[in-house]
Amino acid sequence: MPNPKSLSAADLEFLYSVVGRDRISTGTSELDLHSHDESGHPSHRPHAVVWPHSTEEISKIVAYANEYEIPITPYAAGTSLEGNPIPVQGGIVLDMRKMDQILDIRPEDLQVTVQPGLDFKKLNDRLKKHGLFFPPDPGATATIGGMVANNAKGIRAIKYGSTGDQVLSLEVVLPDGRIIRCGTRAMRSSSGYDLVKLFVGSEGTLGVITEVTLRLTGLPREFMAAVACFDSVAHATHSVVQMVQAGLAPAALEFIDTDIIRLVNHFKQMKMHEAPTLFIECQGSSRVALEDEIRFVKELCDGNGCKTFAAGVGREERDRLWEARYSVHESIRCAYPGRRGYVVDVAVPISAYPEIVRFADEAITSRKLVGPAFGHAGEGNLHAEILFAPNDPAQQALAKEANHAIVHQALALGGTATGEHGVGIGKREFMPKEHGASLELMKQIKKLIDPHGIMNPGKKV
Amino acid sequence: MPNPKSLSAADLEFLYSVVGRDRISTGTSELDLHSHDESGHPSHRPHAVVWPHSTEEISKIVAYANEYEIPITPYAAGTSLEGNPIPVQGGIVLDMRKMDQILDIRPEDLQVTVQPGLDFKKLNDRLKKHGLFFPPDPGATATIGGMVANNAKGIRAIKYGSTGDQVLSLEVVLPDGRIIRCGTRAMRSSSGYDLVKLFVGSEGTLGVITEVTLRLTGLPREFMAAVACFDSVAHATHSVVQMVQAGLAPAALEFIDTDIIRLVNHFKQMKMHEAPTLFIECQGSSRVALEDEIRFVKELCDGNGCKTFAAGVGREERDRLWEARYSVHESIRCAYPGRRGYVVDVAVPISAYPEIVRFADEAITSRKLVGPAFGHAGEGNLHAEILFAPNDPAQQALAKEANHAIVHQALALGGTATGEHGVGIGKREFMPKEHGASLELMKQIKKLIDPHGIMNPGKKV
Repeated sequence: MPNPKSLSAADLEFLYSVVGRDRISTGTSELDLHSHDESGHPSHRPHAVVWPHSTEEISKIVAYANEYEIPITPYAAGTSLEGNPIPVQGGIVLDMRKMDQILDIRPEDLQVTVQPGLDFKKLNDRLKKHGLFFPPDPGATATIGGMVANNAKGIRAIKYGSTGDQVLSLEVVLPDGRIIRCGTRAMRSSSGYDLVKLFVGSEGTLGVITEVTLRLTGLPREFMAAVACFDSVAHATHSVVQMVQAGLAPAALEFIDTDIIRLVNHFKQMKMHEAPTLFIECQGSSRVALEDEIRFVKELCDGNGCKTFAAGVGREERDRLWEARYSVHESIRCAYPGRRGYVVDVAVPISAYPEIVRFADEAITSRKLVGPAFGHAGEGNLHAEILFAPNDPAQQALAKEANHAIVHQALALGGTATGEHGVGIGKREFMPKEHGASLELMKQIKKLIDPHGIMNPGKKV
Repeated sequence: MPNPKSLSAADLEFLYSVVGRDRISTGTSELDLHSHDESGHPSHRPHAVVWPHSTEEISKIVAYANEYEIPITPYAAGTSLEGNPIPVQGGIVLDMRKMDQILDIRPEDLQVTVQPGLDFKKLNDRLKKHGLFFPPDPGATATIGGMVANNAKGIRAIKYGSTGDQVLSLEVVLPDGRIIRCGTRAMRSSSGYDLVKLFVGSEGTLGVITEVTLRLTGLPREFMAAVACFDSVAHATHSVVQMVQAGLAPAALEFIDTDIIRLVNHFKQMKMHEAPTLFIECQGSSRVALEDEIRFVKELCDGNGCKTFAAGVGREERDRLWEARYSVHESIRCAYPGRRGYVVDVAVPISAYPEIVRFADEAITSRKLVGPAFGHAGEGNLHAEILFAPNDPAQQALAKEANHAIVHQALALGGTATGEHGVGIGKREFMPKEHGASLELMKQIKKLIDPHGIMNPGKKV
């Protein structure tokens, strides 16, 4: 594996020749800015940061890096949670954020072609006037390229699917500098092997995504939200299981534990009832149908001893709710300043959701740790931030142990080590257990496409 | 590429040692039965047909075939339309139909695990009592394994997605005999590379699928169907474009041209209005919402000069409609006995649908050929059967030319050579144009996984 001490003068001269002196930095502050993501994984500086403007520039840089075995790590918003873009072996970071253009909106086909550095929220702002949107929403500021690389999901995946489900075609620079296009603009195809899905979720380990064509969805005409509070976590999670089993497909079905409600109330000056809570949102074209759906949701919640059920929440209150939901990470960080954390991200078959939530709680509290829990419950996806003081190695070890126990339990329940954050650094050790003999094939594919291991080394497989 | 003259006595002895003498045939009638599919591609006999009972048997056979470079072609219902399972280089056909068990129904997770030789209609019969179903429906009798291998779609893909969209995990025997499991039972995952989607649609060229775990959908409570007739093909197809652009997601949105209506009327003794026609079906949980949806559909059709719109079609009439739709292939074959045909299967971005339908009609009629057209219009997928007399090479050449012209036009419109039938034999020649530089990567992946080229040789890439 390549691990250069630094870039040589010749390497830098080459980079200057491709992008000029303005779009490359070896200054400490830029290297620091590109040394970490939002996770608690240790930061690591690259040797240089380059801001490419075009696919051709990337192709030249990657081909050179391949020849001289210099690590290449694509980087954008840096909001990932498993150390996915931390350049653990140094080398060159490609900051993709200058490639942020919308290249072609085709509302007549419900499609858009964009560069990877585009912020998905900016895309949605631009799409509004066409009555269209790109549904995945990971909460944090994220770029389309990063979302594709991690196959981001977020709160709306239960209704609209993952980022990968929206990708029709990709342009990718392979590690040897080849530029390929995979996929089609047709809505479906049975042509060739599905290379699009191979690059989706590959976390920058197979090549650099340089262009993305997405399918879009019509903006729903009607929204309805509800907040349901329960006397126990078990009652809340059993309600979720029943909703999914009944075939309900809300646009969001989120679980939030009492601790988080308390932290968010404090952080956002809200007055939510402090109890295990479900946030539910329904979207569609017919108000009557949504009212039906919410009524059915309420019935199921009531059957599980729901204490309060606030339905018919208006648009403004709904936006405030989602703002609260999206402030979970920040609320936790503000309540426990200086703490770092392991972020749980397991997913299990839906019937096992109450069990994994119960197990996680026990794994955390039995070790006398703080680890507020929440998750995309309708998808069987559980998050918790298991906190530790960085100067307390014993506590850190316990936090790690709890996280490991939760992952192993999720795998034993037929689930996955990572529902949406990707493998990055943190989940690599679980890959043999999760994938068994198929991990070998993944490694063979990695070696086939990236024989010198230059692409985001130290991640994924 | 391997192309053995025949299997040696030693090869047969090996096969006997694995499956016994009862589950292997070298008799002419069985070889003939496994020499063709439903397409017009020339048939080709294998040297032996084997009916495996287990993954382990398949692993042994495939490992042996790999060592001695004997072609292996998985085969099941034989209802494919591009010669996908025709053993063009002979060797061993694995008839998967004795591996047809439902291994595990988990209604609490909306999941089922099955063997690949199971008929999808039998699966749906068994799921009914749980209120669940597996939505993809290619019309013909098909097995789950065949549907996964071709990523089958059919009339309901517009609402429920393709077969691949339902696959959570697979067990696959690789060409070297390795048995791998890929995917997870969690609803979503960002773990490892997406090997499931690599095998979905690989048409038996990368390994043998031996077990499939599918996500299931709750049976819709309400159905509504409508039949809309137009004075021109253009008016019918423009209505389709507007429905898709408006974000309507009917459970089916099928285009059928006048010729086909006429043939089906004759074949099924029906009295449908003989005009360019759309079959539309809506499914959901709320009758009111469906009525709303059909009303909106009618408005759009009326805006395009719809001549008759029969909505509110009841369950029985709806079943009869779908029976008519599914008899298209047979109706054509009965009306033109002895003819063979090239089956058009292009798909384009939705706004280009009217253009590809118009182009196809012109390509066929200008060559004085018969080629009735239909298709999953809501998906931008067009079919036509371009007929020729097998003893008329000039007509066959014209039919081939028309088909080629249509494929090239679809590609020029940003579409694909095959929306759902797969590449098989018939679409191989279009792969360089459709995939460009990414075809080379597909070939590298094929060579990585199947270095001796034993798996369904002569297909796909």
